[in-house]
Amino acid sequence: MLVADLRANLPADRLVVDPAVIERYLHDEAEWAPFESPLAVLRPRTAEEVQVAVQLCARYGTPIVPRGAGTGLSGGANSSRDCLVVAFDAMTAIKEIDPLERLAVVEPGVVNDDLRRACADLGLWYPPDPASSPWSTIGGNVATNAGGVCCVKYGVTGDYVLGMQVVTGGGELVRLGRRTRKGVAGYDLTGLMVGSEGTLGLITEITVRLRPRREPERTIAGYFDTLVDAGRAVAAVASRGITPSALELVDRQCLLAVDAWKNMGLSVDANVVLLGRVDTAGSVGDDEARAVRAAFDEAGATWSAQSTDQAESDALFAARRLAYPAMERLGPVLTEDICVPIRAVPDMLARIEQVAALRDTTIANIAHAGDGNLHPLLIAPREDDAARARAQAAFSDIIDAALELGGTVTGEHGVGLLKMAGLAKELQPAVLDMHQSIKRGLDPYGILNPGKVVY
Amino acid sequence: MLVADLRANLPADRLVVDPAVIERYLHDEAEWAPFESPLAVLRPRTAEEVQVAVQLCARYGTPIVPRGAGTGLSGGANSSRDCLVVAFDAMTAIKEIDPLERLAVVEPGVVNDDLRRACADLGLWYPPDPASSPWSTIGGNVATNAGGVCCVKYGVTGDYVLGMQVVTGGGELVRLGRRTRKGVAGYDLTGLMVGSEGTLGLITEITVRLRPRREPERTIAGYFDTLVDAGRAVAAVASRGITPSALELVDRQCLLAVDAWKNMGLSVDANVVLLGRVDTAGSVGDDEARAVRAAFDEAGATWSAQSTDQAESDALFAARRLAYPAMERLGPVLTEDICVPIRAVPDMLARIEQVAALRDTTIANIAHAGDGNLHPLLIAPREDDAARARAQAAFSDIIDAALELGGTVTGEHGVGLLKMAGLAKELQPAVLDMHQSIKRGLDPYGILNPGKVVY
Repeated sequence: MLVADLRANLPADRLVVDPAVIERYLHDEAEWAPFESPLAVLRPRTAEEVQVAVQLCARYGTPIVPRGAGTGLSGGANSSRDCLVVAFDAMTAIKEIDPLERLAVVEPGVVNDDLRRACADLGLWYPPDPASSPWSTIGGNVATNAGGVCCVKYGVTGDYVLGMQVVTGGGELVRLGRRTRKGVAGYDLTGLMVGSEGTLGLITEITVRLRPRREPERTIAGYFDTLVDAGRAVAAVASRGITPSALELVDRQCLLAVDAWKNMGLSVDANVVLLGRVDTAGSVGDDEARAVRAAFDEAGATWSAQSTDQAESDALFAARRLAYPAMERLGPVLTEDICVPIRAVPDMLARIEQVAALRDTTIANIAHAGDGNLHPLLIAPREDDAARARAQAAFSDIIDAALELGGTVTGEHGVGLLKMAGLAKELQPAVLDMHQSIKRGLDPYGILNPGKVVY
Repeated sequence: MLVADLRANLPADRLVVDPAVIERYLHDEAEWAPFESPLAVLRPRTAEEVQVAVQLCARYGTPIVPRGAGTGLSGGANSSRDCLVVAFDAMTAIKEIDPLERLAVVEPGVVNDDLRRACADLGLWYPPDPASSPWSTIGGNVATNAGGVCCVKYGVTGDYVLGMQVVTGGGELVRLGRRTRKGVAGYDLTGLMVGSEGTLGLITEITVRLRPRREPERTIAGYFDTLVDAGRAVAAVASRGITPSALELVDRQCLLAVDAWKNMGLSVDANVVLLGRVDTAGSVGDDEARAVRAAFDEAGATWSAQSTDQAESDALFAARRLAYPAMERLGPVLTEDICVPIRAVPDMLARIEQVAALRDTTIANIAHAGDGNLHPLLIAPREDDAARARAQAAFSDIIDAALELGGTVTGEHGVGLLKMAGLAKELQPAVLDMHQSIKRGLDPYGILNPGKVVY
């Protein structure tokens, strides 16, 4: 049987069958999505060990569910019944950082912040900064094409992936992509793997692009009475032709929850806070920061300021980062991840408020507002099935509203399990067919995270 | 028969069967690659007309060779025997430019410079700037993932493609991608189409990202005695952590050829010229420009200067842009397009000189040097079969050297016909298999530019 074969072919400590340990590998942060018990958890140390596991799973037809740190928010890493969970948390080597070529080569289990720190030590910068960066791993970031705070100026994870080593569904260990700055040799299979959530291959090494270290950022805060006013401020920033290095929205509920948890002494005088950052160097950056503040004021900010206190502005951004875990302390959180055109941000925020009222559901809001990427957080008290059903209806309503406004059902969290129905609404049947033909081609045994992303 | 069916199902003026007109659609700029006569040329006006053509070709099993302006350099648009050439030169509408969302929606036949001009009128910038930008089309740029001069700072065509409308090999008309700033709904099929050279779908509309208009650039020129010195200057710029907005190399042969053709009055006192540009605003940009010049000097420039004369610096860049057609006047040009790590640029330039001597072949050099993307131009006198054979051997030697130095066989021109052998050297057999399984899935009738890119 599979477990016996894995044991026979891999070092003894790689396989986890103790249910108490397996418990930690059952699901990601999308607890609302279903999960079941795997046969075992494998914690490989090398690409070759991953290859052995895939070849054995192919022989037995056993599904493989890969996972990084399990910080995903769509259920993409949730275990299915009798699968093999392959956890990359023991492959944590930063193999190379090359300042001249501006690239790094890492194993998939490297924590995002660890890579960022190692790069900073060499005067370099790895931009992708999901809110989970203290915990999430590069492998998971790549598999979900994670976004983050600085995307609004610097793009998402996929924009930094040059190449990778992958074990294919057929059990081959292959190199995709390149180490050069440019290259068009064949189809962009690296790009195809990015965001495919483990359904097309298991990523065993990643080559990422780096940037030179950037200048310190200026922080501009604005308080608003309503979500819609804040949304208008986002459009006002864009219409001035400015590209801030961050433009985040946090509402009062999130700030209160963070402060109740961490006692950060956040003063919460506003219903909605917008946090802008500008990292353009010199007086040009000073001008941009003033323009961001002017855009806030023009849209009806009740208060605005450019922070001169680094500690204070860091606290505000830390609060933004901690909003999700802080809200989770209040009850299970169902996280939305829609992205709409900038013009539609005020409308979309209004629609979210309407849905909250209609479905009698508490909805807090954080957002990468400058990208139009909104994260309504739907909260239901524990063990209240009716509230849970209302939250799920609200989740579906918000997806429908986003599609109506020309948006997408997932801006950065991925499809996983929670957005499969939404994806089927967003894409034409012929496009879903294209997904399936690619999936069949690259995963001929149907063992790579089956039942996720595409039906 | 196909032609009769096309005539029956499409407006009369769409189909070209006159051999004298067909002549203009036989091949792209890769005259060294083989081409044969098509059954007919179709010049569709709408996506629906393209769909009709694909469905009819599927029925008859007739190959389709799509083409933009025919400025490609790898033979990707070369006609095959009895195919249908689908020329997008009549689909030239710029459908929308949206300053707030920073995007444009265009038909594939829009000329690159026309889009850039239309964007500039609205204070916006479409960065991708292949040397062919006065003639090449967005559809062709996307199909080949064209690079250009500003890639070194702003990336390639694919970095600006948000979404597209495509007719699939199965004859379906589908929308891929999005209009939002972010989105991870399903596999990145937009990215997969980019650079696939018409082998996975026919692109009938493209949505591109735009940037705000940038500041005027400063130009820094450096003269060098040898290619290798210039290559060391490129590495010196990178090692200072500067990202210039252009870093181009042109050798004396190219400058002389341009001047002989255009009488631009270029003074050619150097064997190799490096042209750097810096577009960072304000005093920070002034510092960067000084640092670029210092890097040139450090690497052994015999002369260097920051140009204060816009006309002079525009003339230098125009000369760079005209180098390829100018060399073509001297005889058929076989264009290389290798890309190597920055560290390997001096070595690669030395290897090119060795190959020129060994194979007794004239090789002129232009390069997007800051990207490590080199374009040795191999020139053989007309009707000299021995010289042609030597040039072809040199072409192959250069590919081998690039792979040896960790590079790729094509940095931006694509595989087409000329780089198919090189691609098979660069990619593992299992990766070529992945290409074929995707190709089979998305082109079930095998009619989309068959015989190109992958065997």
